[in-house]
Amino acid sequence: MSSIFSKIITGEIPCYKIAESKDYFAFLDISPLTKGHTLVVPKVETDYIFDLENEHFAGLHLFSKIIAEALKKSVVCNRVGLCIIGLEVPHAHIHLIPFEAMSDMNFSNPKLKLSIEEMTLIAEKIKSNLPI
Amino acid sequence: MSSIFSKIITGEIPCYKIAESKDYFAFLDISPLTKGHTLVVPKVETDYIFDLENEHFAGLHLFSKIIAEALKKSVVCNRVGLCIIGLEVPHAHIHLIPFEAMSDMNFSNPKLKLSIEEMTLIAEKIKSNLPI
Repeated sequence: MSSIFSKIITGEIPCYKIAESKDYFAFLDISPLTKGHTLVVPKVETDYIFDLENEHFAGLHLFSKIIAEALKKSVVCNRVGLCIIGLEVPHAHIHLIPFEAMSDMNFSNPKLKLSIEEMTLIAEKIKSNLPI
Repeated sequence: MSSIFSKIITGEIPCYKIAESKDYFAFLDISPLTKGHTLVVPKVETDYIFDLENEHFAGLHLFSKIIAEALKKSVVCNRVGLCIIGLEVPHAHIHLIPFEAMSDMNFSNPKLKLSIEEMTLIAEKIKSNLPI
């Protein structure tokens, strides 16, 4: 069965898409810790990120770097943090989290509830700051 | 003034070293969230990790991948998580954190107090599982 992320990639489940390349896909986390919290995933389903072969692992991180740079320009934040945990969905994913203080990078914090309009605006802003 | 990590790299400040390459250096976090918590840093001081140029950024992650694989074999854990925050020391660093549950990856958790003997044993175990 396809993972929820694969269904997002194919469009079967809707998302606030940020960017896509041949191998990678980025979209807003629907339960964000902070405004702009983005997930970056490889298109090929792999559960554990360190099982990706080197080229793919490095490519995923370089793709995330482009997104992180656009994020920094798009939302008010001190910097963008990066976190890989991976227990929630068995499809490797990188969390990019714009944050003000270290305590913002805590997955136990309550998630933000943003409106469709807010999420759409954030996604548009990030996309407008991508180099592509 | 050199960062505390640069002083660790040059040996001015002691550490439980795990591995070193021409460009990167890995050592045990002295205030670990879990047993095996490791920091991976570029030798050249850069504050914000996304300011590293692409080759260096990808190289740092590939070096971390080697360490993460050795960590997974060395301590009892579900998997190894990766986190980049970077407010504590103005020298880019990747946290590799072996964890059982998502709640282990919380920087607000109390840090472990391990003896010199325990830290030495953990470092030796990780080093024995490196491919080099």
